[in-house]
Amino acid sequence: MRGTVIHAPGDVRLETLPDPEIVTATDAIVRIVATCVCGSDLWPYRGANEIAGPQPIGHEYVGVVEEVGSDVTGVRPGQFVIGSFVASDNTCPHCRFGYQTSCQHREFVNGCQSEYVRIPLADGTLVATPGEPDKSLIPSLLALSDVMGTGWFAAVAAEVQPGGTVVVVGDGAVGLSGVLAAKELGAERIIAMSRHETRQELARTFGATDIVAERGKEGVARVLELTGGVGADSVLECVGTQDAMVQAQRSARPGGNVGFVGVPHGVDIPGDKLFYSHVGLRGGLAPVRRFLPDLIDRVFTGSMDPGKVFDLALPLDQVADGYRAMDTRRAIKTLLQP
Amino acid sequence: MRGTVIHAPGDVRLETLPDPEIVTATDAIVRIVATCVCGSDLWPYRGANEIAGPQPIGHEYVGVVEEVGSDVTGVRPGQFVIGSFVASDNTCPHCRFGYQTSCQHREFVNGCQSEYVRIPLADGTLVATPGEPDKSLIPSLLALSDVMGTGWFAAVAAEVQPGGTVVVVGDGAVGLSGVLAAKELGAERIIAMSRHETRQELARTFGATDIVAERGKEGVARVLELTGGVGADSVLECVGTQDAMVQAQRSARPGGNVGFVGVPHGVDIPGDKLFYSHVGLRGGLAPVRRFLPDLIDRVFTGSMDPGKVFDLALPLDQVADGYRAMDTRRAIKTLLQP
Repeated sequence: MRGTVIHAPGDVRLETLPDPEIVTATDAIVRIVATCVCGSDLWPYRGANEIAGPQPIGHEYVGVVEEVGSDVTGVRPGQFVIGSFVASDNTCPHCRFGYQTSCQHREFVNGCQSEYVRIPLADGTLVATPGEPDKSLIPSLLALSDVMGTGWFAAVAAEVQPGGTVVVVGDGAVGLSGVLAAKELGAERIIAMSRHETRQELARTFGATDIVAERGKEGVARVLELTGGVGADSVLECVGTQDAMVQAQRSARPGGNVGFVGVPHGVDIPGDKLFYSHVGLRGGLAPVRRFLPDLIDRVFTGSMDPGKVFDLALPLDQVADGYRAMDTRRAIKTLLQP
Repeated sequence: MRGTVIHAPGDVRLETLPDPEIVTATDAIVRIVATCVCGSDLWPYRGANEIAGPQPIGHEYVGVVEEVGSDVTGVRPGQFVIGSFVASDNTCPHCRFGYQTSCQHREFVNGCQSEYVRIPLADGTLVATPGEPDKSLIPSLLALSDVMGTGWFAAVAAEVQPGGTVVVVGDGAVGLSGVLAAKELGAERIIAMSRHETRQELARTFGATDIVAERGKEGVARVLELTGGVGADSVLECVGTQDAMVQAQRSARPGGNVGFVGVPHGVDIPGDKLFYSHVGLRGGLAPVRRFLPDLIDRVFTGSMDPGKVFDLALPLDQVADGYRAMDTRRAIKTLLQP
């Protein structure tokens, strides 16, 4: 099969790889219908993460079950499925508590920017859609695999309530998905922090009521101004830097919540600042599996269209262009079709 | 009147002070029926906080309203009242959101280890009991003013649920009150971390089902052992040191919550550790005012008896002894009666 391999920073190639095979009786092989490039794929691409030799890449996927291991009973060949970027058994105590990305048997899915992929723990991981989806729904369903699921978790972790006031820090695909999640969860006011016109536009399409272009102290001051000096009920931190985290915490009202899904890079939280702020914090790798049934339903009923984050669609053999477009911020997010 | 003044580390004295007077039309003067020494009073007493000249001390109180300012309509002379250690208007956005210790007009109450005290923002701050309480209820009502209200907030911030598993880090008066709060909120299993026999006993009286004497890594290992490798749903951090905070976070299950009420001294939370733990954090100065009506009701109906944290009761003129007893851990908490 053809599959994407990252060799070095800036060097991704579509190559011929062995077809994946069932390794464990709980595996499934999925024929990829659509995959995409994640913001986190850009870390090794930009040299921020070490690359220990050539390796397959990609962890977002929708597709059709091709084959299942002998223990798999929940999905069958021919079904259209979506799964999280973390495979989980969905039965351990952490899964049952709704934190499938902390599953006691979790495995990270990888190698999705390919024609086929092996998904471990298929019964726990894969969710079949209600029938074959219309082609127009593919981008939105693909978005659920990570980016929209992650934005959704940010909103849930920040305890977004109907009628609430929300700030979203970060205007990448996850932040924009967070805006959409806040809207779907009934937030009345959604303040998107963004200084890029195309992203501001998409934020508005997704439900942002206000755009704040200022950052840091000025950004916080603007949020306080917009909220009558009170601060936001919920803040979604979708970047992962120290500046973004500080900005998020200062934008929340006392008793408000910050949901943080940007993987922290050098983030340090002084205990006394957090104490005196009265702000609640929860973050982590989004337990996308928890949300999939609900989110699939929202896409199928047309309630939301998270696929709009894909502003570039390319055939899989142009995967290198897809990375370049995101690296240079020419694209928000690249969809790839084998 | 007679009132306690701290002069220097280890030097508290009962002195003759001017009677407090109504300064603002929203003030009340309360005749103290009972007051006590707080763990936080020991900071200046031990030289951990600077003392800028002789100053009155004490912030926990129950008493009878003696006089009210012309704008006060919610309480009247003769009523038995309790208030938080932070005066709040109870009408600003932060108060209405339940975070009265972040009130936009908050004032710290001080000088309670005296015969009389001036309470600012009396309408927002003071809660009258349903009639004159029986003398036997005084210690429990006094506990609501800070220590029990703080333990309660720790449990609420840690989202203690009926049937849940709870760990309490810290066996001071606040931690012990946290055990009682967890019990009242319906926790099924309550693991108290304590190595002091008298405190272990009180923890059991308050509802602890397990005692763990180990600390640090060994303490966490023991909690995991007791919870089938899962961790606790809720952890109450009632100390405020780095070690206690780390221990608390590691004792919580993924998706669990840490409520932290120990005022942080040098606590630093690495963002990535918090991220990958999936643990939620909320802390701060307990918004005691939010809980007072409910807690007063629980004391009056005999549902709980938080006054048991007072294992030493002295007349106010022995205040210096009361401090010494707590400083040397001879007493858990000292009640003082003018």
